[in-house]
Amino acid sequence: MLEKTPRTTPSRYANQRMSYDEAVVFPILDDALFCTVSYSVDNQPFSIPTAFVRKENKLYIHGSVGSHFLREIEKGIPVCISVMLTDDLVVAKSAFNHSVNYRSVVIFSNATKIDDFEAKALFFKELTEKIVPNSWDYLRPMKEKEVNKTMLLVFDIVEASAKVRSGMPVDEEEDQGLPIWSGLIPIPSKRLTPIADELSVNIPLPEHLATT
Amino acid sequence: MLEKTPRTTPSRYANQRMSYDEAVVFPILDDALFCTVSYSVDNQPFSIPTAFVRKENKLYIHGSVGSHFLREIEKGIPVCISVMLTDDLVVAKSAFNHSVNYRSVVIFSNATKIDDFEAKALFFKELTEKIVPNSWDYLRPMKEKEVNKTMLLVFDIVEASAKVRSGMPVDEEEDQGLPIWSGLIPIPSKRLTPIADELSVNIPLPEHLATT
Repeated sequence: MLEKTPRTTPSRYANQRMSYDEAVVFPILDDALFCTVSYSVDNQPFSIPTAFVRKENKLYIHGSVGSHFLREIEKGIPVCISVMLTDDLVVAKSAFNHSVNYRSVVIFSNATKIDDFEAKALFFKELTEKIVPNSWDYLRPMKEKEVNKTMLLVFDIVEASAKVRSGMPVDEEEDQGLPIWSGLIPIPSKRLTPIADELSVNIPLPEHLATT
Repeated sequence: MLEKTPRTTPSRYANQRMSYDEAVVFPILDDALFCTVSYSVDNQPFSIPTAFVRKENKLYIHGSVGSHFLREIEKGIPVCISVMLTDDLVVAKSAFNHSVNYRSVVIFSNATKIDDFEAKALFFKELTEKIVPNSWDYLRPMKEKEVNKTMLLVFDIVEASAKVRSGMPVDEEEDQGLPIWSGLIPIPSKRLTPIADELSVNIPLPEHLATT
């Protein structure tokens, strides 16, 4: 179980929707391609969306060694990482009871920089395979200078929680008999048919990119 | 034009990808249903995903009057609001040149609470119509107590910027002849066919919910 602290205890739905279980938190992190990393300088918050990889109880992000954002958080200042996957619009019989089915995670942590060349190279493989499964061996191999140009930061996932809403709308009892349609509108992010670059119009689409 | 300040000037792609033009920023805000609001208490950042409405140069969010998050930011402390729409995975011939086509906005602002009943009621209509277009007149009318239970906060959109990547991957010249497929994988969020709640299985799907 993850750490339940005042910072990971919300004021709303603290019992119904919250989980501190890795078995809930980790699959959300693995389904999401992007997170929002927030940090603060002199109480001025900044937030940046970025791709990430989760491995065991660690979360990894990367970027240019010249990135102002990464150079700020590599100091180890407090960071809040949030992830939200939106599954459905929840359409009730009244506007007030409309909601959203979502799976979200919040992590409070601090960055540690990873300088080890092999660890960085492995991260790139794992990120690439997360974004485009089974593509690593097909691509032009990574060069040493590409690894060196990139900063890799890791965060412990210890003080973290998931908040999840699922299921149908909850209408007031007095509204339940109204002849007004209620239900869900699924809003998944779908991978559509790939579109070839001009350089690649005569290159067969590799099997790992064929949509099913 | 919006204010270009050190806080809205990124360290990377400051010229190629940035815009301070409302004609770029506002349509991104109107396409996105959710934003991430970040704030900081004693340099500890917190970030919360939430729905929002943009109207002219203002952004509105709402929530329970009991929400700890809203009660913190209604004090007018500095807030960073970020939005990201992800359009395509950008698949290059090398892992290093992979990217993402996105449309993102960052706003630095402070909340002002709106107590006016009519302004709050109008916001609910606008939020509902943004999430489910043309649905307001079909729903059970909003009750006075529902408006009173909800806190409405507004932010000026003045110090704000958009960062957008679009188009095909950019491979190194020496990689461009490689027989490796490159292009885009579109990853739009799609509205699928609505799923009726048990209470509504015998109620015809209203026209505004019919998917095209």
